[in-house]
Amino acid sequence: MSTKKPLILVTNDDGITAPGIRALIEVMNEIGEVVVVAPDSPQSAMGHAITINNTLYCDAIVIDKEAPQKEYSCSGTPVDCVKMATRQILPRKPDLCVSGINHGSNSAINVIYSGTMSAAVEAGIEGIPAIGFSLLDYSMNANFEPSKKFVKNIVKNVIANGLPKGIVLNVNIPNLDRDAIKGTKICRQANAHWVEDFDKRTNPMGRDYYWLTGKFINEDKGEDTDEWALQNGYISIVPTQFDLTAHHFIQELNNWNLND
Amino acid sequence: MSTKKPLILVTNDDGITAPGIRALIEVMNEIGEVVVVAPDSPQSAMGHAITINNTLYCDAIVIDKEAPQKEYSCSGTPVDCVKMATRQILPRKPDLCVSGINHGSNSAINVIYSGTMSAAVEAGIEGIPAIGFSLLDYSMNANFEPSKKFVKNIVKNVIANGLPKGIVLNVNIPNLDRDAIKGTKICRQANAHWVEDFDKRTNPMGRDYYWLTGKFINEDKGEDTDEWALQNGYISIVPTQFDLTAHHFIQELNNWNLND
Repeated sequence: MSTKKPLILVTNDDGITAPGIRALIEVMNEIGEVVVVAPDSPQSAMGHAITINNTLYCDAIVIDKEAPQKEYSCSGTPVDCVKMATRQILPRKPDLCVSGINHGSNSAINVIYSGTMSAAVEAGIEGIPAIGFSLLDYSMNANFEPSKKFVKNIVKNVIANGLPKGIVLNVNIPNLDRDAIKGTKICRQANAHWVEDFDKRTNPMGRDYYWLTGKFINEDKGEDTDEWALQNGYISIVPTQFDLTAHHFIQELNNWNLND
Repeated sequence: MSTKKPLILVTNDDGITAPGIRALIEVMNEIGEVVVVAPDSPQSAMGHAITINNTLYCDAIVIDKEAPQKEYSCSGTPVDCVKMATRQILPRKPDLCVSGINHGSNSAINVIYSGTMSAAVEAGIEGIPAIGFSLLDYSMNANFEPSKKFVKNIVKNVIANGLPKGIVLNVNIPNLDRDAIKGTKICRQANAHWVEDFDKRTNPMGRDYYWLTGKFINEDKGEDTDEWALQNGYISIVPTQFDLTAHHFIQELNNWNLND
């Protein structure tokens, strides 16, 4: 590590004024030079969406006059924010991108719906070490204090060790007091899914509409999963990749009669 | 295979009236009982986004009076369409979900931004064999005729062989005449990425805005990649997974000082 402060890009999906990102910025200011490029409004569950059929706005703003970071509010998705930061705003490739702290879990299959993690993955695609942080509390009044020490330690480890090409970290933090958190656990993504339900209603004009609701079902009993870690008081850290190839199935597929 | 016709869910991300989905419906009608649940407007590059902070509409419509399929137009994303279909519309779990035919490539890293592939992945998460089809022609006047024979053969193979849990297929078809297509090739996702550029403009009110543009860069010279296959006249088939865990990095991470 050079003695120069690392350049850290901070983003999220709950929007630039969410308490979770404010807590993350505070911790990052203790470690590096911070630039924030985050959505101007909540972008939860946006997955890896990007804005190609619409215009994007991105404006410098000051949210905290006392704080040292530069901040930009962007009309796009979390992935748009990362692209905008690296191509338009930052003076050089950042040393790290952190996303979050998300209000709510991104464990198990949630990683694929998550705007928080998609921002981290986008940074990873661009060759930037990246981490997504989430706290298991959906409330806007969630208490991020207990998370700070752990976030700082994980970030310091990533800066010291780097991350291999093609891998970002998905960190989920249980909603517990600091002393009740048992530490971190390296995990695999639990094989869990959502069983959706649609709440059907009729609008004042007589047209039916729906709200998406659902129940999270974890049938994975493994003690090496993120779900197990979180339920047992640990912070889960899942190394997450974006090569989606199921390499182990290539040979089998070659036996199919696909060229008849 | 039972003698009963398979129930096939058809969706896409270009919208229910796009020529690509109309071609796919036509082929699927030769194979099974078809139900279409697709976006009412273009949803390209929506990734795995779902609609949680807004209402969803989903209405039965008739686009082609002569055709046998049932069709529903949905105000949500491609992933919303699959959830709506399985939880609200279909009488039973479908035997197959096909998404596309997309107007444009979903090879390499495009898989992660793609609404077409996210719909297939969502079906896969729900345990439904699924395939995303894309033609390498972004035009609305793209010619889907040469694709039909190959699409039909791939679908028949999937119905006959099934797909393992956790795997869906990403099929990309070169924009060539039928006789010029050399056949299919099982591939891995090429390690390629986009280098974005933002086209900065000023709106009539004097505020700056941006359009996201970019260049696709493939530095992967492998002849086992989807990019190589497509450039050499083959249809690429990449088995695609949604367990994003980088299993090979778990042991290394366990050596870090994350619990100091």
